[in-house]
Amino acid sequence: MPSTESFMRLALDLARRGEGRTRPNPAVGALIVRDGQVVGEGFHPQAGQPHAEIFALRQAGDLARGADLYVTLEPCSHHGRTGPCAAAVIAGGLARVFVGTRDPNPLVSGRGIEMLRSAGIEVTTGILESECRRLIAPFAKHVTSGRPYLILKSAMTLDGNTATRSGDSQWISNEQSRLFVHRLRDRVDAIMVGIGTVLRDDPRLTTRLPEGGRDPLRVVVDGRLRIPEDAAMLRLESAAATLIATTAEAPAEKVARLRAGGADVLVVPGKDGRVGLAELMRELGARGIQSLLLEGGATLNAAALEAGLVDRVMLFVAPKLLGGFGGKGIFAGAGVERLAEARLLEDLRVTRFGDDILVEGEVRPCSPG
Amino acid sequence: MPSTESFMRLALDLARRGEGRTRPNPAVGALIVRDGQVVGEGFHPQAGQPHAEIFALRQAGDLARGADLYVTLEPCSHHGRTGPCAAAVIAGGLARVFVGTRDPNPLVSGRGIEMLRSAGIEVTTGILESECRRLIAPFAKHVTSGRPYLILKSAMTLDGNTATRSGDSQWISNEQSRLFVHRLRDRVDAIMVGIGTVLRDDPRLTTRLPEGGRDPLRVVVDGRLRIPEDAAMLRLESAAATLIATTAEAPAEKVARLRAGGADVLVVPGKDGRVGLAELMRELGARGIQSLLLEGGATLNAAALEAGLVDRVMLFVAPKLLGGFGGKGIFAGAGVERLAEARLLEDLRVTRFGDDILVEGEVRPCSPG
Repeated sequence: MPSTESFMRLALDLARRGEGRTRPNPAVGALIVRDGQVVGEGFHPQAGQPHAEIFALRQAGDLARGADLYVTLEPCSHHGRTGPCAAAVIAGGLARVFVGTRDPNPLVSGRGIEMLRSAGIEVTTGILESECRRLIAPFAKHVTSGRPYLILKSAMTLDGNTATRSGDSQWISNEQSRLFVHRLRDRVDAIMVGIGTVLRDDPRLTTRLPEGGRDPLRVVVDGRLRIPEDAAMLRLESAAATLIATTAEAPAEKVARLRAGGADVLVVPGKDGRVGLAELMRELGARGIQSLLLEGGATLNAAALEAGLVDRVMLFVAPKLLGGFGGKGIFAGAGVERLAEARLLEDLRVTRFGDDILVEGEVRPCSPG
Repeated sequence: MPSTESFMRLALDLARRGEGRTRPNPAVGALIVRDGQVVGEGFHPQAGQPHAEIFALRQAGDLARGADLYVTLEPCSHHGRTGPCAAAVIAGGLARVFVGTRDPNPLVSGRGIEMLRSAGIEVTTGILESECRRLIAPFAKHVTSGRPYLILKSAMTLDGNTATRSGDSQWISNEQSRLFVHRLRDRVDAIMVGIGTVLRDDPRLTTRLPEGGRDPLRVVVDGRLRIPEDAAMLRLESAAATLIATTAEAPAEKVARLRAGGADVLVVPGKDGRVGLAELMRELGARGIQSLLLEGGATLNAAALEAGLVDRVMLFVAPKLLGGFGGKGIFAGAGVERLAEARLLEDLRVTRFGDDILVEGEVRPCSPG
């Protein structure tokens, strides 16, 4: 008979079908198993739709009675649009519930599990916990901090260059890697670049997948409002908006013109014409942005890392050697002075995309002091 | 019944027991299989000892008659110290021979196979060929070019630094990675560093393994003979010698004193006080050095890459971010101008050493023109 882990893996696969579509809710998957057979499955497709457990219970019908439920996240205990899932699970007569991870919201964490246990249901928690946690990392970051989960994505040669000394950077990574970046864009709420990248590359920052895909909100960090009014990203046909984060140093007439053209210009507190990134993150969080993909450049990358705002790093490494340092790395500046001050990545994963290597990991929080 | 590949893998494992010990011969492993059972095995332990096939034949005795031989390298056809192995295989009455790869020496390649076929033995070549070739890459490079197989080894942070801006570099990589480097040193004929590394780190360049290990020849590239006469590597108890490659700009008295102290000082043609690396490689090749581990620093690394002398790169990447470029990368200088000029790595392999990642690959030869 398959193990509890293998059923939870199926529930994770279900959950991923809704990933990036469920805001403000987390992506969740649920599976009902009776005598080793899957009799119900569900995932939360988007806010306003039923939760994963409800779909699984509907499919299982009477077969749910006495069966096992696998759910990637603790069933909710609060009255949302479809009533608390924990109550539905109790009403469905489930015998056992296997939970991937507890609700990260400290206000409700554990309550759904308590409801189930009070009703006599056997509950086991922590099945494939780290994977279940990673799935809802943006939701957890947002619900606990009010800020988005920031993923820094970059691509470099094996000797640490993101461009040659002449600025040649197309392309460091291969087609498979670049396609994967569009899959990432399809799943995040917002994508962010610095004004230097806009001036140099004039990117569209849209999601371009064979099957289409959804554009994330475009965020440009542009303290002095240098963005050209005919920038490509301002002239797109896209369901997503472009937000330009600037400071009080922005010329008022240009702010007005950009706004009249449809851009969302946000004036954020800052210093020396540089946007305060912590303040910007809070503002994006307040707007419901849970996941944010930072695609450079090196100045913005370094500022975000130094401010402790980077949660995850995804770095594509191409098997190419320039034979020197062309002056363009992932981060601008000289970095920390001592190795002991280096930021560490945890829960490291290495994936191959053809001959490219994707190295990704969670940035370990700074130890206080 | 196990596949031909699985038997060849066993032969490769046998061969590796002699790796780095067989100079001027290649490491070879052999296995005799009868009715799916291994009845004889052997590897070439060192020059002067019998070849792998002979050990396997001795162990198999009469059971070799009608059996299969798996050998990582084409059996030799020439009269060495133990006679041609192909003749011994014929005399042993083997029915079939599976060969990993042909002899890379263009003067004899294919002759052993021809001898076997002429005697009516069924010969299959190319079993696990790329692995069998990689095993003898140093031998193949040396026999075809007269120069050693040069492996560039370095360690860097995920953002491309080999040291912080203050020069802090101990340690970028973790203990497991560093132990593996000593296993590498144990298997190569020579290890090479630039004088900058000697002046900065005063390294010993010895092999330090729990079980001991063998020291490779130490080579220092030191065009103006700046090496301190009390450098650690000149005062070692080591079975291996220290060779200092310098130019005509070296002060004669210092050359004499270093030689009197036991160092081997080699004057190599050069320009502007810089040792001609191609000339040095030829000289090391003439001395029988087949494998050479280049351990930096960045100036020597860049010169070797630019001269087209690097055959393999082994790069330990630690999951650390300095958040900038401290000015010390794998290669000194600004590198090539266009991405199209980047040197590519092929046959890429990724290995984990705890949280470190080892990325290694063969440097694709420059296309002519």
